[in-house]
Amino acid sequence: MVLEVHAAVDLGRSLAQALRYVNAWKRRSVVVKYGGSVMASGEGEGTLIEDLVLLKGAGIDPVLVHGGGSEITRMLDRLGKESRFVNGLRVTDEETMEVVEMVLAGSANKAIVSQIATAGGQAVGISGQDGKIFQARKLEGPVDLGQVGEIEAVDTSLIQLLSGSGFIPVVASIGIGGDGTSYNLNADHAAGALAAAMGASKFILLTDVSGIYRDEERSPVSVLKADEAKRLIREGVVSRGMIPKVEACLAALAAGVPTAHIVSGTQPHALLVELFTEEGVGTMIVP
Amino acid sequence: MVLEVHAAVDLGRSLAQALRYVNAWKRRSVVVKYGGSVMASGEGEGTLIEDLVLLKGAGIDPVLVHGGGSEITRMLDRLGKESRFVNGLRVTDEETMEVVEMVLAGSANKAIVSQIATAGGQAVGISGQDGKIFQARKLEGPVDLGQVGEIEAVDTSLIQLLSGSGFIPVVASIGIGGDGTSYNLNADHAAGALAAAMGASKFILLTDVSGIYRDEERSPVSVLKADEAKRLIREGVVSRGMIPKVEACLAALAAGVPTAHIVSGTQPHALLVELFTEEGVGTMIVP
Amino acid sequence: MVLEVHAAVDLGRSLAQALRYVNAWKRRSVVVKYGGSVMASGEGEGTLIEDLVLLKGAGIDPVLVHGGGSEITRMLDRLGKESRFVNGLRVTDEETMEVVEMVLAGSANKAIVSQIATAGGQAVGISGQDGKIFQARKLEGPVDLGQVGEIEAVDTSLIQLLSGSGFIPVVASIGIGGDGTSYNLNADHAAGALAAAMGASKFILLTDVSGIYRDEERSPVSVLKADEAKRLIREGVVSRGMIPKVEACLAALAAGVPTAHIVSGTQPHALLVELFTEEGVGTMIVP
Amino acid sequence: MVLEVHAAVDLGRSLAQALRYVNAWKRRSVVVKYGGSVMASGEGEGTLIEDLVLLKGAGIDPVLVHGGGSEITRMLDRLGKESRFVNGLRVTDEETMEVVEMVLAGSANKAIVSQIATAGGQAVGISGQDGKIFQARKLEGPVDLGQVGEIEAVDTSLIQLLSGSGFIPVVASIGIGGDGTSYNLNADHAAGALAAAMGASKFILLTDVSGIYRDEERSPVSVLKADEAKRLIREGVVSRGMIPKVEACLAALAAGVPTAHIVSGTQPHALLVELFTEEGVGTMIVP
Amino acid sequence: MVLEVHAAVDLGRSLAQALRYVNAWKRRSVVVKYGGSVMASGEGEGTLIEDLVLLKGAGIDPVLVHGGGSEITRMLDRLGKESRFVNGLRVTDEETMEVVEMVLAGSANKAIVSQIATAGGQAVGISGQDGKIFQARKLEGPVDLGQVGEIEAVDTSLIQLLSGSGFIPVVASIGIGGDGTSYNLNADHAAGALAAAMGASKFILLTDVSGIYRDEERSPVSVLKADEAKRLIREGVVSRGMIPKVEACLAALAAGVPTAHIVSGTQPHALLVELFTEEGVGTMIVP
Amino acid sequence: MVLEVHAAVDLGRSLAQALRYVNAWKRRSVVVKYGGSVMASGEGEGTLIEDLVLLKGAGIDPVLVHGGGSEITRMLDRLGKESRFVNGLRVTDEETMEVVEMVLAGSANKAIVSQIATAGGQAVGISGQDGKIFQARKLEGPVDLGQVGEIEAVDTSLIQLLSGSGFIPVVASIGIGGDGTSYNLNADHAAGALAAAMGASKFILLTDVSGIYRDEERSPVSVLKADEAKRLIREGVVSRGMIPKVEACLAALAAGVPTAHIVSGTQPHALLVELFTEEGVGTMIVP
Repeated sequence: MVLEVHAAVDLGRSLAQALRYVNAWKRRSVVVKYGGSVMASGEGEGTLIEDLVLLKGAGIDPVLVHGGGSEITRMLDRLGKESRFVNGLRVTDEETMEVVEMVLAGSANKAIVSQIATAGGQAVGISGQDGKIFQARKLEGPVDLGQVGEIEAVDTSLIQLLSGSGFIPVVASIGIGGDGTSYNLNADHAAGALAAAMGASKFILLTDVSGIYRDEERSPVSVLKADEAKRLIREGVVSRGMIPKVEACLAALAAGVPTAHIVSGTQPHALLVELFTEEGVGTMIVP
Repeated sequence: MVLEVHAAVDLGRSLAQALRYVNAWKRRSVVVKYGGSVMASGEGEGTLIEDLVLLKGAGIDPVLVHGGGSEITRMLDRLGKESRFVNGLRVTDEETMEVVEMVLAGSANKAIVSQIATAGGQAVGISGQDGKIFQARKLEGPVDLGQVGEIEAVDTSLIQLLSGSGFIPVVASIGIGGDGTSYNLNADHAAGALAAAMGASKFILLTDVSGIYRDEERSPVSVLKADEAKRLIREGVVSRGMIPKVEACLAALAAGVPTAHIVSGTQPHALLVELFTEEGVGTMIVP
Repeated sequence: MVLEVHAAVDLGRSLAQALRYVNAWKRRSVVVKYGGSVMASGEGEGTLIEDLVLLKGAGIDPVLVHGGGSEITRMLDRLGKESRFVNGLRVTDEETMEVVEMVLAGSANKAIVSQIATAGGQAVGISGQDGKIFQARKLEGPVDLGQVGEIEAVDTSLIQLLSGSGFIPVVASIGIGGDGTSYNLNADHAAGALAAAMGASKFILLTDVSGIYRDEERSPVSVLKADEAKRLIREGVVSRGMIPKVEACLAALAAGVPTAHIVSGTQPHALLVELFTEEGVGTMIVP
Repeated sequence: MVLEVHAAVDLGRSLAQALRYVNAWKRRSVVVKYGGSVMASGEGEGTLIEDLVLLKGAGIDPVLVHGGGSEITRMLDRLGKESRFVNGLRVTDEETMEVVEMVLAGSANKAIVSQIATAGGQAVGISGQDGKIFQARKLEGPVDLGQVGEIEAVDTSLIQLLSGSGFIPVVASIGIGGDGTSYNLNADHAAGALAAAMGASKFILLTDVSGIYRDEERSPVSVLKADEAKRLIREGVVSRGMIPKVEACLAALAAGVPTAHIVSGTQPHALLVELFTEEGVGTMIVP
Repeated sequence: MVLEVHAAVDLGRSLAQALRYVNAWKRRSVVVKYGGSVMASGEGEGTLIEDLVLLKGAGIDPVLVHGGGSEITRMLDRLGKESRFVNGLRVTDEETMEVVEMVLAGSANKAIVSQIATAGGQAVGISGQDGKIFQARKLEGPVDLGQVGEIEAVDTSLIQLLSGSGFIPVVASIGIGGDGTSYNLNADHAAGALAAAMGASKFILLTDVSGIYRDEERSPVSVLKADEAKRLIREGVVSRGMIPKVEACLAALAAGVPTAHIVSGTQPHALLVELFTEEGVGTMIVP
Repeated sequence: MVLEVHAAVDLGRSLAQALRYVNAWKRRSVVVKYGGSVMASGEGEGTLIEDLVLLKGAGIDPVLVHGGGSEITRMLDRLGKESRFVNGLRVTDEETMEVVEMVLAGSANKAIVSQIATAGGQAVGISGQDGKIFQARKLEGPVDLGQVGEIEAVDTSLIQLLSGSGFIPVVASIGIGGDGTSYNLNADHAAGALAAAMGASKFILLTDVSGIYRDEERSPVSVLKADEAKRLIREGVVSRGMIPKVEACLAALAAGVPTAHIVSGTQPHALLVELFTEEGVGTMIVP
């Protein structure tokens, strides 16, 4: 049976609209931060993976950056080691760093790679040490946080090579020091820095909340100016774990990335909807 | 305002589906015969043009072949010259051929080019004489039809050059003889021959009917085997103007084009729906 | 029999001289305006076509621009429509524009393409609408001339693509507006603008007179400075149909084309002689 | 001070000899299995890393494959999980596999990458899941070993991409099933299969013994024919952990790799000496 | 003054004819043997050099092979060394070979290079030792001729490199043995072997006679079949110094070179006339 | 037998060191002046030739420039012609120039080419006339030296073409005037000028002394500043035949060549030792 005329016309309009989006986004790169909490909840994960494969197929180049805080804590627990945090940053002694590396670059990273492969994509799981992507140094501060690092420089050549050769790069948020020391990086910051260094067309932070909320509103703000975002931090409206996310967005914007998005990764196809519609489903921060 | 969750999820599914189609069709060429009757009625024309531009943008390569029978008749009328047909073929004396050339390569061809340009695409309007695309000879038969031609050879190099350089080729169905004589070609046949010579992935005949109808059914057959199509011609179910269309489809299939489609060009976005859905809106003929 | 020594020596000298010219002109582009009057008279046409094919073969890249005023008038006559001119420009209402398009892009254009194909060359006949070569707007003035256009911008990419791929582009002097409207362009101006935009090495206007005549001289001026040409226009020595030709030459020169030539297209091989000899057969205008 | 003549002449000879080797080995790929025991002892590790960087610089393309058995056991111990082996293969339940992945792809892999980066090279640490390098299935046998895999197919395109772009690929011996399941692979076998699939010019197994010993000889056999190696296995002279190593060598030879080497990785610059001298320091197996 | 119409028409025809030749010969290579006797007489030398430069400029690739017998004899005389010949081959002891090398590769070769440079071309003078073009061994026979060689293999890669980069290669007829020994080669044979190895489109032997004469005819034969040429040698009509020339032609033809020509190099522009006319000025040998 | 551990470790260190040098020097060009006196003595010649082939193989691009003064004198003697020198420059009348050309471009040049070919390299012997490498004019001065030239311009394109295509260029120090006249060039100057024009990474002058000696020291100075070298000339410590050598070094340095070396070519592998060690065996002049 052929389609009924009415259904066919509606479908035609949707298809045309989808193609308009694809044409507008072709050959651009999108850096996606895939948050630990999303990975833990897993709800939208299946569609996220398929979305990445579909985007890649349609000529858009996604790059995935991930952390894995809760998995690290779980593994430390199992090893009988307590997790300590100062201002939301994990105190990372040498033994902890080893676990961070194992969990991020070993377990979390390869799980994502396997999912992408199973969904028909070609992924390569690397960490910020490979190809010296995230060159880092010890983060100095009033408290010694051990091997917590801050990014000094980003070398995008390996990412560009993989991305340009049909692979989806999946990058664990670990840095490398000049002497080969590994550094534990905040994944939000690392993703934002990569988006900035690559001149990405969009930076998308997938998390377990639906965006930034202002006051008592029940749905997140759709569009936020950078200045306003800064003000919301100052005023404490944006707080705690949301702060590094907004900071990462602001850093990407400051480096010329046109828009940064905070979106719920637990909603099916949230990535496509945020990329391909004007309203979107989360908060878009603009310069 | 962000999208409501329910609407966003639905939209996400449609977007994902559209991307799956785009991925499946990337870097393939589709030869589209754009029938004179569609051009006359004009209903779906606007969306056809946009569809071509969208497909091109998404990495699929459409090539348009067109005739323009009714416009030729109108112009001959204005010049006080009667149109004569034998078995559906226009008797084409020298003066008629001049008019054919003017209307097809001059008027109809450039009208399509302008529409594509206005819709944001890059089109190049040529005829089968350019780059010796359609090398033809006089069609011999019991009645002398004048400069009615049949195709001897197809040179696709100009089409490939244009198509591979970002342009949408728009080709008038005129042939060139070894001595430079112009020949009036049946546009359905010419389009089928081009699809065959290019090794196109699909051959789509846009016309003013919705497909092939069998018996008294109210909607067209969705899928038809080549053998069955031949039988329908023999049995007279397919008749008159539909015969060269089905023949062109069969020729394309015989040369290895995987599927050929007869679709109503008057329905909005019929091209996208036929390309991007399983059911489609017209009749798909398969080997 | 071998050649006699004396004849062989003479022939050798001619061949050597011809090769010197070819070497000097290799890989340069020459824009040739092929005037309607030449096409009407037809005398030198045969050799013109062969000359184009020979030049292309020898590594020089000719681009042909043509009008077709007298053929348009004839067709309008046949359709019972009067031709009206204001200051030498055809008043072009919508119906006239349709005829202009048919005659130029359909009839005249393809006739040239066929001749080139028959002479062994590879031609592609396009109009200024294809690839948005001649982007035009309505020519404003005291009298409303309808769809008479003036060129706003020239996009040479399609021409370069075809020219660089072994084809001889044959361009009808029609422009396209931002909204897709077709415009009737003066072919001399269009050719000059194309020569200018391409950075052609020569701009050659083939017409039915042998060049520019000064005073009562019986043979045309061989070389004319641009300033002197302007003076001849002001003084009325250059008048009527010759004015747009000289203007087109001056525009090409102003844009950096080294020399512009007005030559009789009715003389056999006039194109080769003008290109390949110092004296030439027409008038060369220099900056 | 310039060199003394005598010393300079000696040095000159050494340099000339080294260049002869480099010339002979340019643009060839060498797959190096870096054994867990070497990594544990660490003695020759520093020079191994430098050797890899020097080879890469001189135009030879090393690819490193590594396991990490003892580190896995250590981590399992810390997690209070017993290591069980059947015929030298680790019984790998789901929990064990997670630890294998973490240790190999996370800890061991990135440690090597950091060392290469510190030594001035560009390394990329991946596992056999990335780019679907090692496509595996469950190893069937009398005892259920859990996620122990055997290799079905090897996709070398990611390795070739990285190797050809100036990077040294460092590959953890993990496989991926058709459904995305991770498999624990014997690193010797995996390295041999990669050498075979790449058409490597040499396959070098670095281990903690100096080669294959025959009878009571005090130094290892320098050259061994494949047939003789098989006989030594049958006769029990080659036994236990050495069996998969010799099998991996034989598999590589069977696939056309010209020579396979078992060399002590604890000796400084053993890699260079084995590659660049006739005698070498370990056992070379030849077809 | 412009050209007179009559003269212009004649000139136009000549130019058209010359272009037809150039088109037919573009991108083909022509091996030209430039005989010692021509170099001695020098009459047509000036035009030969210009002809080579003109051909190169027009897209035809000439390669010059030269000997220099009389100059060698002169130099040996000056050094008080007698020239000895056996069957037309110079007995070449070590001292003689040194002189051969000096005269051919040093004096004659660079004189030609300088002339081409002065005429505006880019020449590179090499000998058959460079890039191992003429790999030779000692010619064995009843009499020991010393370092007279015969060609074993021809490596055309250096010639192709130079020819394809805009240079005219000028090659002295010296060969190199496997041990580096220089060999004195017959220049006719060497040129024929090079034409054969390159798959040249023509092989032209410039000498001081006008071609091959049959019986008592006063002008040379225009076209000769290979079989007939062999018969003329057998019958003694072709004799002495003409024998290696005809043999070289036959060898080139046997290897697939379409035509070989024996032409008087003392006649101005003989090369062009032979290449670019049907009758030519010398004898063309065809398969 | 495998290597003994102690020997293997030592060898490994040497190999590693050699690779470090190769890596540092890859893809750089080194201009080597090969002095007549070295060629005469012949001692280090064998290793020089092998060194060139080894360097080329390892990715370093040597270019050889040579003179041949003593061989010229010998040949002039044999021809009964006296050699006359003014300030170390050979008075070069036309007859002498012919001999210079024969000996340099014919005899000396091809001898080197043969040796390189025999050693497994691919050499092309040219002179400064080929490809107009050394464009020269008559050296003017108080005494007329005949065809002694000075370099006006250096065209490195032929050298770059050959060097980049795997050949070792061997260049005789002859120049070409605008009118094709050959000029006798000082080979030291010519080599220095070529090093300068190519932007070589090193300029090495092989001669029959071990470097520059200061005062009464018994071994040559290892490193010399350009200013100091100038002072040594002014003070007469550097004198006679060493002056043009030091001048050539200074000219190369002035044009940006980082270091210039004067080394004894009679010592085996002196080229490698000077290139690949810090101390070297001769005198290195630095800016």
